[in-house]
Amino acid sequence: MLALAASPLGIRTLVVDGSADACAGQVTELVVADWSDEVALDAFADRVDVVTFDFENVPSAVAERLAARVEVFPNPRALAMAQDRLTEKNLFRECGLGTPDFAPVDTREDLIGAVERIGLPAVLKTRRLGYDGKGQFRLKTQDDIDAAWAALGEAAGQVGLILEAFVPFEREVSVVAVRGRDGTFRSWPLTRNWHVDGVLSLSLAPAPGATDELERAANAHARTVAEALDYVGVFALELFVCNGKLLGNEMAPRVHNSGHWTIEGAHTSQFENHVRAVLGLPLGDTGVRGASAMLNWIGDMPDPAPVLTTADGHWHDYGKEARAGRKVGHATICAPDAGSLREKLAAVGKGLHRDEQVQPAIDTLA
Amino acid sequence: MLALAASPLGIRTLVVDGSADACAGQVTELVVADWSDEVALDAFADRVDVVTFDFENVPSAVAERLAARVEVFPNPRALAMAQDRLTEKNLFRECGLGTPDFAPVDTREDLIGAVERIGLPAVLKTRRLGYDGKGQFRLKTQDDIDAAWAALGEAAGQVGLILEAFVPFEREVSVVAVRGRDGTFRSWPLTRNWHVDGVLSLSLAPAPGATDELERAANAHARTVAEALDYVGVFALELFVCNGKLLGNEMAPRVHNSGHWTIEGAHTSQFENHVRAVLGLPLGDTGVRGASAMLNWIGDMPDPAPVLTTADGHWHDYGKEARAGRKVGHATICAPDAGSLREKLAAVGKGLHRDEQVQPAIDTLA
Ligand SMILES: Nc1ncnc2c1ncn2[C@@H]1O[C@H](COP(=O)(O)OP(=O)(O)OP(=O)(O)O)[C@@H](O)[C@H]1O
Ligand SMILES: Nc1ncnc2c1ncn2[C@@H]1O[C@H](COP(=O)(O)OP(=O)(O)OP(=O)(O)O)[C@@H](O)[C@H]1O
Ligand SMILES: [Mg+2]
Ligand SMILES: [Mg+2]
Repeated sequence: MLALAASPLGIRTLVVDGSADACAGQVTELVVADWSDEVALDAFADRVDVVTFDFENVPSAVAERLAARVEVFPNPRALAMAQDRLTEKNLFRECGLGTPDFAPVDTREDLIGAVERIGLPAVLKTRRLGYDGKGQFRLKTQDDIDAAWAALGEAAGQVGLILEAFVPFEREVSVVAVRGRDGTFRSWPLTRNWHVDGVLSLSLAPAPGATDELERAANAHARTVAEALDYVGVFALELFVCNGKLLGNEMAPRVHNSGHWTIEGAHTSQFENHVRAVLGLPLGDTGVRGASAMLNWIGDMPDPAPVLTTADGHWHDYGKEARAGRKVGHATICAPDAGSLREKLAAVGKGLHRDEQVQPAIDTLA
Repeated sequence: MLALAASPLGIRTLVVDGSADACAGQVTELVVADWSDEVALDAFADRVDVVTFDFENVPSAVAERLAARVEVFPNPRALAMAQDRLTEKNLFRECGLGTPDFAPVDTREDLIGAVERIGLPAVLKTRRLGYDGKGQFRLKTQDDIDAAWAALGEAAGQVGLILEAFVPFEREVSVVAVRGRDGTFRSWPLTRNWHVDGVLSLSLAPAPGATDELERAANAHARTVAEALDYVGVFALELFVCNGKLLGNEMAPRVHNSGHWTIEGAHTSQFENHVRAVLGLPLGDTGVRGASAMLNWIGDMPDPAPVLTTADGHWHDYGKEARAGRKVGHATICAPDAGSLREKLAAVGKGLHRDEQVQPAIDTLA
């Protein structure tokens, strides 16, 4: 989607990926190389003017190696900080953004002590390399400690672990924002998100019912964090609203699934603004065209007809092979107002036999 | 732009072009082959499910050869009819759409006779292979006959000529429309167009001041012509409004420059609907998001900043080398209503030092 957004700007892209199957190869030139292939990475760097990522788990050593030869945005330090749930949460707190209670866990004894201090329910997560809810274990009772350690203890050595209080949030929202090379900061309206089994299922933007105060606070946090990292590009700040207060969950140092609706729902998409930011072009307006809903397709693509026949309904098939739990595409439904969005979503849900997926949006837009 | 629209639909594209430089190669796989290379064309046909064109001057023999191996939309007969200004104008008349007075011209004597019958001013055009005003000569007085024949007489043998009355039109409009495999017909709102030196310079949509009656008449003509050709895909019907009446200029059997604004200005772009139509997918809604203006960049790309900094301003750089008279890109400016579009256009015109290019739109939107 970044390459598709770069093309009309006259920007040519070159993508490096470990897999010859990477879907970017359908729309741009693909260099197949592993992160460990320094010769290939150096040759790649020498062919481009600017490097960026659409994947947050690029080893920071790779980002730094590239940065020695070519401009890299976001900067490798920002990438490294955001990759690690522990440094990220410490940063949030330094920036005045509360987080769920947390503790680093390196050993089984750490886990027992952390559960004692933080209480239950809690969630044990890998500090690094997690995504789509992978690398997580939820603990409800003391009895879960053994199973949690059995599941993730081995990972402790490589990627570290963190125990977080499981917060009974009222809702999840994200700020998708962009910061330019010159420090210009812009954000799209707050997006409300629903996860199923730890994977994003549905987003609504602008988040219905978000007060100006909440929106302002979320934006201020996003800006403070971005400035602390001297971040350049698009990022998402995932937030829990808990007792009406914002808690920081994580920062995604890249274009984000909860910003996919901006392709059709905003004047400038997150993809285009990311390209503009990393190239030092002026940022585009982040105003919206109405109300948008994004539905993720997990595992396989449903029948496209109900979306294709919906006015202002948009289909996104990533050209990936179907695989359980894999994000293979999404759809965005846009409408001039919340009421008509609700109607369209109800019809799409029915047409797709996915009423449960759209139901939270329908309830919210009521 | 077709390949960019196909990608989110999960459609892979393969493009054949005579030049290794063809800009589609930046976003999809390119097969470089001449129209005369039958082996390459057959191999190309065997790799795809459906063939279509974004260029109307594909030799009809090539279209027919491909059609023997694979589905081709629009059908080769429709392509051939629309390629020839004479068959096209005869078709318009059969369909009840008036045209400027015209006469075929094969010899110098024909030209003299045609000028006598049709009168002056008139315009001598090649019947086939013209585009962007190329292959045309305007005659104002009898004295121009020699120069016209000197310019185009040689072409008469290969591509034929036609003399048309030069009509003092009030304005030019186009219907961009799409017809599905099942005969479904949809059109975008009428677009008003301004040409400079025979090349499209500016489009406004919906055409300001177009009455419902004019819109209905234009659509009815477009539909009748498409049905007569059993046309499948997007096409444009270029019309003159002359004494308040519609006259058919030409039919472009392809996505059309006057429909470029649909990328951001409509719920479904002409490119996406063309892909949907030729693949037999349901057609998308052709409703608009407000008012749009499209500015063509001829020869070279101007400074992008004034457009990039305009809210809902969109940049399209085709990645082509600058060359006098060549369409190298365009910009689309969208706004919720005519008044705000006018303001944005005035600012963009000033920023680009291209006030003259935007002036006709400003006058019309006043
Ligand atoms: N501490 C917590 N309290 C309550 N719910 C949580 C907590 N941590 C995670 N979740 C739930 O699990 C979801 C996924 O968690 P998290 O964002 O940490 O995972 P991830 O693997 O980075 O996922 P993604 O890549 O989708 O952002 C959250 O969006 C939230 O719904
Ligand atoms: N008979 C005519 N009377 C008045 N103006 C004409 C006539 N024929 C052409 N023109 C003017 O010249 C422009 C280009 O002519 P035409 O559409 O025939 O050329 P073309 O080469 O097919 O251009 P394009 O590819 O841009 O459509 C028209 O849009 C119109 O402005
Ligand atoms: Mg998350
Ligand atoms: Mg024309």
